[in-house]
Amino acid sequence: MIQKHYTVSQGDLVPFHNHTCQCIGTGRMALALQQEYQQQLALVQSEIGFRHIRGHGLFSDDMGIYREYTDVSGALRAEYCFTYLDLVMDSYLRLGLRPFLELGFMPEKLASGDQTIFCWKGNVTPPKSYDGWRDLVQATLRHLMDRYGPEEVSAWPVEVWNEPNLPGFWKDADMDEYFRLFEETFRAVKEVDSRFRVGGPAICGVDDQRWIRCFLEFCREKKIPLDFVTRHHYTTEVPQTRGRYGYARLQNPEEGFQNLEATRQIVDSFPEYRGLPIHITEFNTSYVPNCPLHDTNQNAAYIAGQLSRLGDVNQSYSYWTFGDIFEEFGVPFTPFHGGFGLVANGGIPKPTFWTFRFFRDLEGDCVHRSEEAVVVRHGRGYRGVAWNLTMEGTDPRLGLQLDLPAEDSPYCLLTKTVDEQVCNPLKVWHDLGEPSSLTEGQKALLKEAARPLVRTCRLEGLQGRLTVELNLEANGLVYFELLPAELTPDRGYDPRLVSASLCEGSYD
Amino acid sequence: MIQKHYTVSQGDLVPFHNHTCQCIGTGRMALALQQEYQQQLALVQSEIGFRHIRGHGLFSDDMGIYREYTDVSGALRAEYCFTYLDLVMDSYLRLGLRPFLELGFMPEKLASGDQTIFCWKGNVTPPKSYDGWRDLVQATLRHLMDRYGPEEVSAWPVEVWNEPNLPGFWKDADMDEYFRLFEETFRAVKEVDSRFRVGGPAICGVDDQRWIRCFLEFCREKKIPLDFVTRHHYTTEVPQTRGRYGYARLQNPEEGFQNLEATRQIVDSFPEYRGLPIHITEFNTSYVPNCPLHDTNQNAAYIAGQLSRLGDVNQSYSYWTFGDIFEEFGVPFTPFHGGFGLVANGGIPKPTFWTFRFFRDLEGDCVHRSEEAVVVRHGRGYRGVAWNLTMEGTDPRLGLQLDLPAEDSPYCLLTKTVDEQVCNPLKVWHDLGEPSSLTEGQKALLKEAARPLVRTCRLEGLQGRLTVELNLEANGLVYFELLPAELTPDRGYDPRLVSASLCEGSYD
Amino acid sequence: MIQKHYTVSQGDLVPFHNHTCQCIGTGRMALALQQEYQQQLALVQSEIGFRHIRGHGLFSDDMGIYREYTDVSGALRAEYCFTYLDLVMDSYLRLGLRPFLELGFMPEKLASGDQTIFCWKGNVTPPKSYDGWRDLVQATLRHLMDRYGPEEVSAWPVEVWNEPNLPGFWKDADMDEYFRLFEETFRAVKEVDSRFRVGGPAICGVDDQRWIRCFLEFCREKKIPLDFVTRHHYTTEVPQTRGRYGYARLQNPEEGFQNLEATRQIVDSFPEYRGLPIHITEFNTSYVPNCPLHDTNQNAAYIAGQLSRLGDVNQSYSYWTFGDIFEEFGVPFTPFHGGFGLVANGGIPKPTFWTFRFFRDLEGDCVHRSEEAVVVRHGRGYRGVAWNLTMEGTDPRLGLQLDLPAEDSPYCLLTKTVDEQVCNPLKVWHDLGEPSSLTEGQKALLKEAARPLVRTCRLEGLQGRLTVELNLEANGLVYFELLPAELTPDRGYDPRLVSASLCEGSYD
Amino acid sequence: MIQKHYTVSQGDLVPFHNHTCQCIGTGRMALALQQEYQQQLALVQSEIGFRHIRGHGLFSDDMGIYREYTDVSGALRAEYCFTYLDLVMDSYLRLGLRPFLELGFMPEKLASGDQTIFCWKGNVTPPKSYDGWRDLVQATLRHLMDRYGPEEVSAWPVEVWNEPNLPGFWKDADMDEYFRLFEETFRAVKEVDSRFRVGGPAICGVDDQRWIRCFLEFCREKKIPLDFVTRHHYTTEVPQTRGRYGYARLQNPEEGFQNLEATRQIVDSFPEYRGLPIHITEFNTSYVPNCPLHDTNQNAAYIAGQLSRLGDVNQSYSYWTFGDIFEEFGVPFTPFHGGFGLVANGGIPKPTFWTFRFFRDLEGDCVHRSEEAVVVRHGRGYRGVAWNLTMEGTDPRLGLQLDLPAEDSPYCLLTKTVDEQVCNPLKVWHDLGEPSSLTEGQKALLKEAARPLVRTCRLEGLQGRLTVELNLEANGLVYFELLPAELTPDRGYDPRLVSASLCEGSYD
Repeated sequence: MIQKHYTVSQGDLVPFHNHTCQCIGTGRMALALQQEYQQQLALVQSEIGFRHIRGHGLFSDDMGIYREYTDVSGALRAEYCFTYLDLVMDSYLRLGLRPFLELGFMPEKLASGDQTIFCWKGNVTPPKSYDGWRDLVQATLRHLMDRYGPEEVSAWPVEVWNEPNLPGFWKDADMDEYFRLFEETFRAVKEVDSRFRVGGPAICGVDDQRWIRCFLEFCREKKIPLDFVTRHHYTTEVPQTRGRYGYARLQNPEEGFQNLEATRQIVDSFPEYRGLPIHITEFNTSYVPNCPLHDTNQNAAYIAGQLSRLGDVNQSYSYWTFGDIFEEFGVPFTPFHGGFGLVANGGIPKPTFWTFRFFRDLEGDCVHRSEEAVVVRHGRGYRGVAWNLTMEGTDPRLGLQLDLPAEDSPYCLLTKTVDEQVCNPLKVWHDLGEPSSLTEGQKALLKEAARPLVRTCRLEGLQGRLTVELNLEANGLVYFELLPAELTPDRGYDPRLVSASLCEGSYD
Repeated sequence: MIQKHYTVSQGDLVPFHNHTCQCIGTGRMALALQQEYQQQLALVQSEIGFRHIRGHGLFSDDMGIYREYTDVSGALRAEYCFTYLDLVMDSYLRLGLRPFLELGFMPEKLASGDQTIFCWKGNVTPPKSYDGWRDLVQATLRHLMDRYGPEEVSAWPVEVWNEPNLPGFWKDADMDEYFRLFEETFRAVKEVDSRFRVGGPAICGVDDQRWIRCFLEFCREKKIPLDFVTRHHYTTEVPQTRGRYGYARLQNPEEGFQNLEATRQIVDSFPEYRGLPIHITEFNTSYVPNCPLHDTNQNAAYIAGQLSRLGDVNQSYSYWTFGDIFEEFGVPFTPFHGGFGLVANGGIPKPTFWTFRFFRDLEGDCVHRSEEAVVVRHGRGYRGVAWNLTMEGTDPRLGLQLDLPAEDSPYCLLTKTVDEQVCNPLKVWHDLGEPSSLTEGQKALLKEAARPLVRTCRLEGLQGRLTVELNLEANGLVYFELLPAELTPDRGYDPRLVSASLCEGSYD
Repeated sequence: MIQKHYTVSQGDLVPFHNHTCQCIGTGRMALALQQEYQQQLALVQSEIGFRHIRGHGLFSDDMGIYREYTDVSGALRAEYCFTYLDLVMDSYLRLGLRPFLELGFMPEKLASGDQTIFCWKGNVTPPKSYDGWRDLVQATLRHLMDRYGPEEVSAWPVEVWNEPNLPGFWKDADMDEYFRLFEETFRAVKEVDSRFRVGGPAICGVDDQRWIRCFLEFCREKKIPLDFVTRHHYTTEVPQTRGRYGYARLQNPEEGFQNLEATRQIVDSFPEYRGLPIHITEFNTSYVPNCPLHDTNQNAAYIAGQLSRLGDVNQSYSYWTFGDIFEEFGVPFTPFHGGFGLVANGGIPKPTFWTFRFFRDLEGDCVHRSEEAVVVRHGRGYRGVAWNLTMEGTDPRLGLQLDLPAEDSPYCLLTKTVDEQVCNPLKVWHDLGEPSSLTEGQKALLKEAARPLVRTCRLEGLQGRLTVELNLEANGLVYFELLPAELTPDRGYDPRLVSASLCEGSYD
Repeated sequence: MIQKHYTVSQGDLVPFHNHTCQCIGTGRMALALQQEYQQQLALVQSEIGFRHIRGHGLFSDDMGIYREYTDVSGALRAEYCFTYLDLVMDSYLRLGLRPFLELGFMPEKLASGDQTIFCWKGNVTPPKSYDGWRDLVQATLRHLMDRYGPEEVSAWPVEVWNEPNLPGFWKDADMDEYFRLFEETFRAVKEVDSRFRVGGPAICGVDDQRWIRCFLEFCREKKIPLDFVTRHHYTTEVPQTRGRYGYARLQNPEEGFQNLEATRQIVDSFPEYRGLPIHITEFNTSYVPNCPLHDTNQNAAYIAGQLSRLGDVNQSYSYWTFGDIFEEFGVPFTPFHGGFGLVANGGIPKPTFWTFRFFRDLEGDCVHRSEEAVVVRHGRGYRGVAWNLTMEGTDPRLGLQLDLPAEDSPYCLLTKTVDEQVCNPLKVWHDLGEPSSLTEGQKALLKEAARPLVRTCRLEGLQGRLTVELNLEANGLVYFELLPAELTPDRGYDPRLVSASLCEGSYD
C-alpha cells in the first residue's frame, strides 16, 4: 500500500476555487421534453444542484421554433413557435437551473446548406440570411424576456455556436464566417438588452490556441466588448473503435491543465481582455458518447482531480453531460453504454455522480490540496474529499494520513466511500449478464448498488491536533467530515451495555 | 474464524414454514392517527408488506368510540362515534393491511373500575355491564361491515383482550372473569357474522401453560367452537433498569422454542382443538420498550434465528412492533431509545427491519435450514438468508460454505449485507454524540447508513455443483440470491477493456 | 325552449353497448417519451381509464428501433434497439393501458422509397425487403414477449398499417401492395404466437366500402383467418382553410351511422367473416388537427351522440386523440389550436373530455336511449347522460323530463353540468386575449374553468314513480345520478335551523 | 333584487388594512401530530398561505414535554422531552407557518389543582411552583432556539395563557393570579432573549374592557414593557342547544366593531402603550365547535364583512380555526358538524375557506370599500371581493354596479363565485342523506362541489371608464379581476368561426 502523510498547520490557507456546481452539460435541447430526461435531471438537481445548464440544438428543427409561410402578397415570412421552448425552459427553472444559452444550430429552412451532424441531423451551415438569423435570435430572447422577465433572462449567459474549429460542427471550420456570425450575433443580442453577457468561440482542442488568439484579435479589431471566452476540455487519447464502442486511454492530467493555463495566458496577453472569465463549456474524460470509461470508478477518481484544479484559471467548467438520454450516435442499446452522463438510463447514478456530490459540499477555507485530497475548514470541523486514481502498474491501495489542528474534545469522523467494491453499479450490471433491457427489479437493485458506503467513528483531539486516516481502494473516492461531537447521553443510556460496536475507537 | 460447510444434494427438501409477513404489531390504535406513525408504516409496507396488524386500544377513550348521553326520558344511553376508527382503518387498508382485531381495553365510562395501565391509561377492568360491552362490540363490527363490506371484515381475525394472565393488563389477572369476557364476546361476534374467526387467550409467559390448558378446558366445557389460540413470546431475562433504560440479556433461543412446542402439545392434546392454529400475537427479544438491544445488529441476527423456526408450530408470529411511535412508558426522549420498532423515529430502519425484508423473499422450496442459514430454491437459482448471532466468548467471525446443485453455466451471486460495520445506524447516532433532536441532515445521514451493502460477483457451475462462500462479521446478516446470468454482451462491448473490476471472479 | 318528455316503464330494457373506454388514440409513438404527453395521459387515465391505446409510428426512425451495420464479412445486417420502446411500453402499462399495435411506418433504411407524410416525416413506402420487414416485426414482438410475458403481449391486438386507401399514407394507395403487406405481416405475427389477433385494413372514408369488400375477398382467397376488421370514422365536411386553421362543418350524424352500418353488412355478407369484430381505430368530428371545433362544447355534445350509438355495430371506437402533444402539422402555436385531444396543452380538459368521463360511468342495464339521453339502472338508482347538440337555427335550450320507476322514498339527484356558460375553457382562453404562451396562473385558472358544475337536490318517489327534470343550455351536457338517500341525521341536527338552502326541494 | 351602484373616481384612495393571512387558529397542539390535521393544513397553506398559527395545549400532557423523576439523592427533578414538539414545529415550518406561541395549559404534575377544561382535559390551574413554570418556559424556548436558530425563534410572538377572564379557562378567573403569571412569564421569556415579543391578556368578551384596562394598569405599575395586547372576537348570540348541536344567531356586525374600537381606545389612553399592536388571537362567528352556521355560505358572507374591517384597529385577526380536527367537545360524529374549521373533515373546503382565499389576493391600493365590496387597483387592472350577507326579511338577491376608471381598451372580467347554488358542500352532504361516514366517492364528490364557479367575459373601456356588473345570489361571495386583455390572435384564428359562445360580450 502506498502511504501518504500530510500535515496541516494552524492557520494554513491554500488556494482552491470551487465552481463545481456552476454549470452542467446536456444532450440537445429537444431531449429536455422527455420524461426520462427530466427524471434524471431532477435526481441530479436534488443531490447536486447545478446553477446553469448548456447544450446544443436550441434552434434545431425538433424544437419547432423557426417556421416560414407565404403571406397574402406571396412573400415568404418567418414566424416563431415557442411552445416547446416554454416547456423546456419551464422545466429548467422549476429545477433551479438557468440556461447557459448556446445559439445554434441552424434551422433547416434558414440554412445556406444541408450539411448536418449527428444522428439527429443538426444543420451546421451558416444562415442563408444574416437578417433572418438576427431576427430569430432577437425574437427568441424577447419572447423569453416576456415570459420570465428581463431581469431573469438577461442574467443567462449567451454563447455563439459550438466548436466552429471542427468542420463537422461548422461548415469547413471556416474561421472568417464564424467571426462574422459571432459579431452579428453579439450585436443582435446586445441590442435586445445590453445586460446580456455574450461570449465564444466555444472551441475544442484542435488548433485551439490559434483560434483563441485570432478570435481575440478579431474582437479587438472590431471593438467588440467581449464578456467571456469559452472553450472545451477533454483528456483522453483518440478512442479505439470496437463494434459499437470506443475505448480511450486517459491522458496524464497535467497535459490538460497546461493547455488550459496556456489559454489563460493568451487571453491575459490582450490588455482589453485581461482577466476575462474563461468558461469551459464542456469537459469530460473522453469526447465520445460510447466510451465505457465514463461508467467506471476510474472516471470518478480522475474527475476528482479535475474538480480540484479546474477552478484555478477558469470561472466555470461544465461536465458533459448530466445524463444518458443522448442521441448523437443514435439511441443507446444498453443502460451502461459508456454515455457521458452522471446518471445511467434507468436513473442509476454512476460513480462520477458522487464526485460532483462530494465536491459540492467543500464549502469553507481550504487548508489542504494535493494530488489525492482537498480539505476545507467547515464550522468547527472539516470537510474533505480524497481519491486514489489508479493507472496501470501502481499499487492500487492508498493509505492517507491527514494531521489536522483540532480542539481537545471528541469528534465524529464521517466517511462516504465510493469504490469498485462498494459502489460500482457497472460491475453489478455486468455480473447480471449485461442486460440491455432492465426489469424494474434490476433497476432497483442497481440503484441500491450505486450508493456510497456511509460509516462513522469517534476520534479525540489531543494537544490541539487530530489525525484522520483514510484507506482507499483502487480508484476509490472518499468524502469525509470531521464533526465536533460531544456526547449528550440520555439519563441511563450506557453504550457499553448496548453493543461492543458502539465502543470502537476507529475503523477496522 | 469459525468455519461451517454445508452440502445440499439434488432433491433435498427441508421443512420451513415462512409466515414472516403474516402479522405485525403496533402501538395503540389512536397512534395510527399520527402522521409520523403512518410514514413509518408506509415504509415498512413498501419494503416488507405485512398482511395483518395488531395492537391495543381499539376501545380506549382516545379513539372516541364509546359515548354516553341522557335521553329525553332521563335514561343513560350509549352512542358510538366512528370518525377516528374510519381514519385508522382507511389508512391500514390503503397500505394493504387488515387488522387482527384485539378487543380492548375498556372505555372509561363502561368500566367497572379505574385501574389503568401505561402512561396512556388503558382501563383494564371488566365492563360495568356485559350488555353494554356486547353492544359496543357488535355496533363496532357492524359499522365496519357497512363501510368495508361483510366479506372483507369477516375475514379479520378477532382476539379477546390482551395478556389477562398479568394483573397489570386485567384486574387481578382474574381467570374466571376473563373466561366470562371471552365467552360473552365470542358469542356476540359470531352473532354478527358466523364467519368471523375468534380466539384467545392472548397470554404472555407467566403461568402460561396452565392458562392455555384451563382456557381450553373452559371452552370445551362451554362448547365454544374456538377458531384459534393466541399467546406471546419474548426471549430475554428480566431487564436491569438504569435511569430511563432497561438492559436485558438474551435467552438461549432453544428455551423459547421448547416453550412454544409445549403449548402446541397442550392444544393438540384436546381432541376438539387438535391442529387449531396458534397465533403468536406478540413476539420480540425483550418485552420492554426501553431496551437498547432492540436497536442493535445482534437483535437482527437473533430474530433471523426466530423467523427460521417460529413457523414450525405456529400459524403466525407478530413482531412487536413495526415502529417507535409508542407511548407505553411515555413519549421517548431520543430516536434510539430501545423501542420495539423495526423503524426508529425519524424513519430510520433498524437492522431487524432487514431481517424481515430478507425473510420475506424466501419463497420456494427449502433445501437447507441450519442454525446459521435458510436456503430455498427459486426459479432456476436460489435465495437464502445467513446470520451470525454473536453471543459472548465466541469468535465473532463466521465463514459459511454452501455447496449447491447447479447447472454448468454462469451465475450471478448477489449479496445484501447488514452488520455492525456497514449497516449500523445506532452506531452512527452514537458517534454523532447521541443527539436527542435530529436535524434533517442527521436524519438523511442515518437513513443512508441504514441500508444493506449490495454486492455481486460471477460464479460458474461445474459438474452440476457450485459453492457459495459467505463471510459474516459479528452479528452479521446476509441475504443472497444465486441467479442464472448468461452474458449477453452488446456488439463490441468487452469488459476486459473497461475495468479490471469487471473481471474479478468473486469477492475480496 | 324545446321540451321533451320521456317515460320509462317498469321492466323496460333498451339495447346499448358501451365500449367508451375500450381504446383511445395518440400522436405518434415517440411523442410518448415526452413528459407533457405523459402528464396529459395520466390525467386521462385517472379520470377516464381507457384500456388500449393506438397511434402511428412504432417503426418510425425517432423510435430508434431499426438499425443497420456492416459485419466483419462486409455484409449489411439489421439490429434492433428497444431502449425507447421499453420506455414507452413501460409508461403505458404503468397507466393501465395496453397497446393496440399499429405496425408502421417504414424505417428509412428499410424503405423502398423516400415518400413521407407529416412534418415528422413518416415513410409510407413498402419495405425494400419483405424478409427484412418480417424480421423486424417478429423481433419486436419477441422482445415485447420477453419483457412483459407472452400471456400479456399476445393479448395486444395488431393492426397492419394505417389508411392505405390514401396515397399520402401508402404510396399510390396501392391496394395489391397493401394486401401483400397484410398477408406477409399476418403470417409473421401468427408465427410468433398464434394467440395474437391481427386485423386491417385500417381505412378511412375514401372509397371505403370497396376497400373493405376487396380486402375480405383477398383474405378469403388466401385463406387468411382474419381476427377483426378496422376502419376510421370522421363526421365533418372538408374544412375551409384560413391561415393556420381549418374550419369544418359537422355532418348530420345519421350519414356516418349509415356508413358504419354498411360496413357491418359487407363484413357479415362473407360467411367466413360474419360477426367478426369491427374496430373503429380512429374517430372524431374533424380529421384535421387544426380544427377549432375540437375545443368546443358543441364537439362534446356531438360526441355524446356518437358514444350513444357507435357500439351498435362496432366492438370498439378509438377517439383520435387523448391529448394535444401532436406534430402532424408541426408543433402547435397556441394551447387552443383545434387539436384532436381530449386535453389541451397545459393539461386543460376540453369539454369532450367530460363526454368520455360521463359515458364511462354508464354501467348497468339501459332503460332509455334517445337523441338526447341514455339512462341506465344502477344499483337501486339510475345513472344517465343527456346532451343538447345545438346546430344552426334551432332554439338553443332544451327541457328534458324523464319519468322513471322508483321506490316511494327519498332520492338525491346529482348532476354534473358541462356547457358554454359553466365549463368552457376555450372561452376563458379567448376572453384572456388568446395567449399563446400560458403563465402558470393562466393554466391554473383554465383548469378551474374546465370542471363540471356539480349540484344536488332531494326528490321523493311517489306511487312508484319519480320525474327527473333537466334543463340544458346550448350544447350542454349533463351527467346525472339518482341515488336512494334516506336521511340519517345526527342527534339534534336540524337542517331547518341551519340554512334555507338545505330545505329546497329541487333546482331553481 | 336590491340594486347598488358605486362610482370610483380617478385617484380615489380608501383605507383598507389587509392582514387576512397574518394568523390562523388551530385545535390543540398535540392534534398537529395527526395525519388528517396535516393534510387539512397543507390544503389551507397551498391555497391561502397563513404566516402564523396559534392554538392551545403547548404544555398539556399529550405533548409529553414536562416530566418528573427522582434523582439518586431522592430529590424530585423536572426533565423535558421535546420529541413531539419537534414533530409539530417541523411540520409548521415546512408549511411556511411560524407559531404564535400561546403558553399553556398546565402540565398535570406542575399544576396546583386538578381543574380541567374540555374532553381533552387541559389543566387550568396556576403552577404549583412558579420556579418550575419559568424553568419549563425557558427550557422550551431554548430548545427551540437550538433547533431552529435564535433569529428565527425570537421572531415568534408569545402570548401568555388563554381567556383567563373565564373561570373555565383559568381557575376562578383570578385576575391577580393571572397578572402574576403574566409578569413571571414575561420576564422569564425576555431573559432568554430580549427580542421576543410578549403580550396578553388573551381575553374573550366577558367583562373584557375592564380586564384590558386593569391589565394595562398592572403592566404600567410593574413597568412591564408590553409588546402587544391580545383579545378575542366572536359575533353571535348565546347558542340554543339541541341534541349535540348549538344554534346561534348572528349579531349585527356593528356591535362587534364598536367593541374592538373601544379596546383600541383603552389601549391608546395609556401613554406608555399608545399605538401598541392589538392582535385578535381568535375570532369567528360562533364560539362553539358544534354550530352548524360555521359550515354555511352565510358564514362566508359574514366573514367577508369582517375581513374588510378588522384591520382598521387590529394588527392581526386569527380565524378560529383552519380545520375540523378538533376535540374540545369530543371527536365529532359527522363531517359537517358545525366545527370551526375552514376545512371539513375529509378535506372539504367550506364556503368560508374561499372568503380567506379571495381576500388574500386583495393586494394593491384600495379604491372602494363598502358594506358589499372591497376593490383594489392591481397592475393595470383591478381585483375585488363582493358579498351579499342575507339576514332574515330582505330580498336575497343583490345587483352591484361598480363604475371604474379604465383605459379605452379591452378587458377580461374574471369572476369566481361561491354561493348556495354553485358552491355549497353542506347542501350536497345534506342531500346525500347526511352520512356520518363518508366513502371515498362521497369525499371526491363533496370536493368537486366545493369549488367556486369560474367565468369570464370581455369588456371594453370607453372614455376612460368601465362598469362591472355583479349579480349576487343569497349569501353569495364573488371574487373578481379586471385584466387588460388585448386580443393576440394566431394567424387565421377567428372566434366567429369557432363558437357563438366566444362572441358574447358579458354574462347571461
